[in-house]
Amino acid sequence: MTMRAFCLRTRSALLPVALLVLACPLDSARADSMPSWNDTGPRKAIVDFVERVTDPGSPDFVPEPERIAVFDNDGTLWAEQPVYFQAMYVFDRIEALAPKNPGWQDREPFASVLKGDYAGALSGGTRSLLELAMATHAGMSTEEFAASVVDWLESARHPDTGRRYTEMVYQPMLELLAYLRASGFRTYIVSGGGIEFMRPWTESVYGIPPEQVVGSSIDTRYEVREGGPVLMRLPELNFIDDKEGKPVGINQHIGRRPIMAFGNSDGDFEMLEWTTAGEGPRFGLLIHHTDGEREWAYDRDSHIGRLDRGLKEAADRGWAVVSMADDWKVIFAPAER
Amino acid sequence: MTMRAFCLRTRSALLPVALLVLACPLDSARADSMPSWNDTGPRKAIVDFVERVTDPGSPDFVPEPERIAVFDNDGTLWAEQPVYFQAMYVFDRIEALAPKNPGWQDREPFASVLKGDYAGALSGGTRSLLELAMATHAGMSTEEFAASVVDWLESARHPDTGRRYTEMVYQPMLELLAYLRASGFRTYIVSGGGIEFMRPWTESVYGIPPEQVVGSSIDTRYEVREGGPVLMRLPELNFIDDKEGKPVGINQHIGRRPIMAFGNSDGDFEMLEWTTAGEGPRFGLLIHHTDGEREWAYDRDSHIGRLDRGLKEAADRGWAVVSMADDWKVIFAPAER
Repeated sequence: MTMRAFCLRTRSALLPVALLVLACPLDSARADSMPSWNDTGPRKAIVDFVERVTDPGSPDFVPEPERIAVFDNDGTLWAEQPVYFQAMYVFDRIEALAPKNPGWQDREPFASVLKGDYAGALSGGTRSLLELAMATHAGMSTEEFAASVVDWLESARHPDTGRRYTEMVYQPMLELLAYLRASGFRTYIVSGGGIEFMRPWTESVYGIPPEQVVGSSIDTRYEVREGGPVLMRLPELNFIDDKEGKPVGINQHIGRRPIMAFGNSDGDFEMLEWTTAGEGPRFGLLIHHTDGEREWAYDRDSHIGRLDRGLKEAADRGWAVVSMADDWKVIFAPAER
Repeated sequence: MTMRAFCLRTRSALLPVALLVLACPLDSARADSMPSWNDTGPRKAIVDFVERVTDPGSPDFVPEPERIAVFDNDGTLWAEQPVYFQAMYVFDRIEALAPKNPGWQDREPFASVLKGDYAGALSGGTRSLLELAMATHAGMSTEEFAASVVDWLESARHPDTGRRYTEMVYQPMLELLAYLRASGFRTYIVSGGGIEFMRPWTESVYGIPPEQVVGSSIDTRYEVREGGPVLMRLPELNFIDDKEGKPVGINQHIGRRPIMAFGNSDGDFEMLEWTTAGEGPRFGLLIHHTDGEREWAYDRDSHIGRLDRGLKEAADRGWAVVSMADDWKVIFAPAER
């Protein structure tokens, strides 16, 4: 029987059954799907919340379109030490572009980068960082930039682990993303990182499509060239999606308040605050980097991913806190090869 | 048999069948679902395109995640005469807010609005328009603004037809939106209108959820008040989603290039150009307001929804053009009551 014949014969008769079968709850299958989580508090809190909001008989039931979960990226979905991975992209690109920019050899902050002195390069503060970022993120089309990010991820390796950066993602969080999606959630990234830096790979790595990525951005300008129209990336900041910018970015992109939020630093504080202040069932979770053996241990005094206020207020605010050392069986996803 | 018992008994056995049934093409049901379109060129072009990109055996097949269709709003999904409906909201709000702003009686452009002289109020150009817009769109939280838009839509009536503004939507376009969604498309609004002005009602009126609305915006600021955090609307323009801003807004929000674009004015030109310049199958359509009897007839010389370059270049660029008088059996959706 051809597909077409099958369809003609069965659709009208079986469609109601088909819809009923697909409506069956997947509870047990779902909860089993987070094998890298220890059966401790955070996992229990997540499963309890998800079961409440997905059970049509529960007073806390939330219809699917409102099941929105937002995730910070750096330090929440993938690692962020010794520096944000996007900074490693910047440094590598400066090196790659140096032959075409001979003046950089004698000009800070480029000269320090080319000597491998990354700390020195960043000693100029925000201004240096912006100069490096714009030299590597602007002056090309959106498509050219995306291709350059993909190329870099293919060749670059983490300085400590030798892994690809996309292999520095947290296995328990991959399982959580899949569990939430199987429970009718849409999963969004809301990151201080560059929106266009993330979009080329979030779908294959996290299962999060480009339209569900919110991040910082620079301006773009529409230009019609001989080969057709392009969006040129300009060396001007458009939006910083961090701290109090996260609720702003969420509102701008999603236009709904999420019901779950996951972060790891005080840069995520307002996102969790905004999410959990809404009416109805709400869930906030902070990941505490406690595992100096398998990953990195840092919080209040870290130069990156600083977590202080969040730790102080989590209990009062009803936010769960994951201790990576205690709550996760494994940290990183298996290496690809 | 309870739902749970049904599920346990049938899921594993019937799931493959269920998925197969749901994968059946809906071609005939779909094409029949645009009854308000005459069987003329534009309808044929739409159906032909959709059948090509949804047929897994076609060389032009497009996977569902890439099936993105973008629609202008004013003049494309609902009417825009005698002025953009959002301007009517502004005028009505100025009147409602006047008692609390006694100074407006003697101050332009407010004084003219309060006398009902809308043309006079707008004679100051962009500056007057911005002043009126900011006085009515800023200085409140996002939730307060949304509530005010919903209230207004409930009470306001179109000055010529006496209909609610949400009854001034085009029935053929509602059918087209539904047809595309039934064909695995996601439908987005990409409008010069305010993003927060549209989001409170696009889901109930068009079936387009808030996260699929792209529009112009003002800045917002996160503020923690006694009652909880809010996003305050500030009297500063953030983004103008018109002309060359439309591809920029599409990239910022969606991060993918659409494969279908629908507009009605030269403000949509770049959106159609950007969409149809992509690789693979692409579709652009302009709606030409040719029906002075059932709607309004205007194009090159209109102060609103001006369509000149689009008409000149549509044929060369392979864009379809709908003549509302010739291609649509009915214009407006039935009144609600």
